Amino acid sequence: MSDPIDPVALTADLVRCPSITPTEGGALVLLERLLSDGGFDCTRVDRGDTSNLYARWGRKGANRTFGFNGHTDVVPLGNEADWTVAPFGAEIRDGYLYGRGATDMKSGVAAFAAAALDFVAETPPDGAVVLAITGDEEGDATDGTVALLDWMADQNEAMSVCLVGEPTCPDVMGEAMKIGRRGSLTAWLTVRGTQGHAAYPHRANNPIPAMARLVDRLSSHVLDKGTDHFDPSTLAVVTIDTGNPATNVIPAACATTVNVRFNDAHSSQDIITWMQAEVARISWEFGVEVDSKIKVSGESFLTPPGDLSELVAAAVMAETGVTPVLSTSGGTSDARFVKDHCPVVEFGLVGKTMHQVDERVAVEQINQLKAIYKRILTDYFA
Amino acid sequence: MSDPIDPVALTADLVRCPSITPTEGGALVLLERLLSDGGFDCTRVDRGDTSNLYARWGRKGANRTFGFNGHTDVVPLGNEADWTVAPFGAEIRDGYLYGRGATDMKSGVAAFAAAALDFVAETPPDGAVVLAITGDEEGDATDGTVALLDWMADQNEAMSVCLVGEPTCPDVMGEAMKIGRRGSLTAWLTVRGTQGHAAYPHRANNPIPAMARLVDRLSSHVLDKGTDHFDPSTLAVVTIDTGNPATNVIPAACATTVNVRFNDAHSSQDIITWMQAEVARISWEFGVEVDSKIKVSGESFLTPPGDLSELVAAAVMAETGVTPVLSTSGGTSDARFVKDHCPVVEFGLVGKTMHQVDERVAVEQINQLKAIYKRILTDYFA
Ligand SMILES: [Zn+2]
Ligand SMILES: [Zn+2]
Repeated sequence: MSDPIDPVALTADLVRCPSITPTEGGALVLLERLLSDGGFDCTRVDRGDTSNLYARWGRKGANRTFGFNGHTDVVPLGNEADWTVAPFGAEIRDGYLYGRGATDMKSGVAAFAAAALDFVAETPPDGAVVLAITGDEEGDATDGTVALLDWMADQNEAMSVCLVGEPTCPDVMGEAMKIGRRGSLTAWLTVRGTQGHAAYPHRANNPIPAMARLVDRLSSHVLDKGTDHFDPSTLAVVTIDTGNPATNVIPAACATTVNVRFNDAHSSQDIITWMQAEVARISWEFGVEVDSKIKVSGESFLTPPGDLSELVAAAVMAETGVTPVLSTSGGTSDARFVKDHCPVVEFGLVGKTMHQVDERVAVEQINQLKAIYKRILTDYFA
Repeated sequence: MSDPIDPVALTADLVRCPSITPTEGGALVLLERLLSDGGFDCTRVDRGDTSNLYARWGRKGANRTFGFNGHTDVVPLGNEADWTVAPFGAEIRDGYLYGRGATDMKSGVAAFAAAALDFVAETPPDGAVVLAITGDEEGDATDGTVALLDWMADQNEAMSVCLVGEPTCPDVMGEAMKIGRRGSLTAWLTVRGTQGHAAYPHRANNPIPAMARLVDRLSSHVLDKGTDHFDPSTLAVVTIDTGNPATNVIPAACATTVNVRFNDAHSSQDIITWMQAEVARISWEFGVEVDSKIKVSGESFLTPPGDLSELVAAAVMAETGVTPVLSTSGGTSDARFVKDHCPVVEFGLVGKTMHQVDERVAVEQINQLKAIYKRILTDYFA
């Protein structure tokens, strides 16, 4: 039996790989070597510019297969001059490991890799353990976890359940896990009228009043009042622009961008249908053309409270003394893709400094996270 | 008695002066020499960067003083490469004199200067003829006709009536004169909320819905249904901008520009009071700050139909066979300043190509315009 893997040292090794999305940066190469040495069957599942790693211990098609999902790519540094440490230095100071990706989510990947390696070495289970690790979660994510899942379907590889290791705790280790996330879509709408002189508005067809009415209606609409497990859906109009420098000219067009985060009361298609009806109504009322482009970033997902969430919650409670709430707040994660294949929940450490300058993780939490993940595996296969 | 002045040659001489606003370009110098030679008492009334010329034939304080007002500055060339002639070349081709300022309004100034010079030489009137010519009408007009009027008040110089020689005919020579113009004001309004992440709109205070509601209310409001001599007042929202490049960020502020053209049913203060009440209502409803800056370009003016309009209309009819309509449409002109001092109307030739590339004037119309102005002087002093 090999020595236990130190998840802090592994996090540090991963932070030293400059894997700004979509660069692989050596992170997946490092993990592939480590996991292969530990008896995992590893496959690089690269697609487009994206590198991904699929690792399985145990037999393909096993009745019980526990999966972990995570990413090694990181967001850009922001203003590098504002960092007080080398962003890829993995320096440890006052109990914190610093570096881009320290919380989001090289510590999570290190913790589940270390937990899985130790677990299969110490108590080889009757089943399989899968690690599906992508190098493109922070980018447009088209060739990341989706590519892994596509490849898995092709190869008859599957997970019975999946845990995504993203940071999920707002402040205190163990306080929250996610059993769902809202869906998200963005609409770019352009109202097209007819340009003209401001002194003769009746000879022009100003797109701005039509846009104002449309934005007022979209903003005023209550999508829902929340559901059993979700807060109310939200709609945020983030831009309106004409880019017209002349105060005496009525512009030909006006553009807006609308971002909707929706819960399990809706599919993206419901939202799109409603929005297009409002667009058609404005188009008719004002005699304007409205171009629309809508991009769905993800449907909402919910794994209703049950076996999987209870398994994770019990392990968190045992290791931290804290009972996690079952949250559905926050932005999207790759769980939105996994949910079409198997029950999925998310649990990770405190994400407070993610995407910020001087991103850092409490060393203590990395060890706790490994212990929690290992306990989850032990309980799952017990 | 000297030879009659050729208004076409004088227009050409003026076009050759490159007097892009506020550059004098030699135009006022040329006129000052010509008018002085013809017995006019000339004074350069310069203020700030602006050159102006005041010319009077006859006694100061005369009982009957007929005034002409016009400008020699011109708008910029636009895209010079699109001109098919030299913009300051004054080339005559197929009966048209080409050049920047040919219609707006060097032909008008040439016509009234020529008419006035011939008239006082041929039939010296019992009264005075005043030419108040500015070099800053196309710019911000703060040191133009206003400076002339200020100086005149200081010097006890006055006009009994005034004719502004701007182009007034849409298509056919003689078809329209102006007895009034709408007032104009521009409001710059900025709604200030609180920036935030698009996924958590309740933690931000998005300025865009407040702006949309405000613009909808302003745009939907009917200011009036027109008055005896005016079309309905108009309001045109010409911009809304947030300048927010990020689709996941709620912006802190959103700005709009609103242009109002108002008739004699309103003073600018009425409009401002109404607009500020709408702003206060939005501010209260949405809990946002709204900064406002409002600039009044001019109050509406009306010289009700009467002696002056009849004098001008009769002369137009006699020379062209066309009865001019008494119009109050169009943007502002310096008549908005003159109206505080004496009855004022506007008559000039066809303005179709003003401010455009290949601006041009029918040579025939310049001669007609001089004849009309001369007849007006003759009839006025008869
Ligand atoms: Zn992440
Ligand atoms: Zn003009």
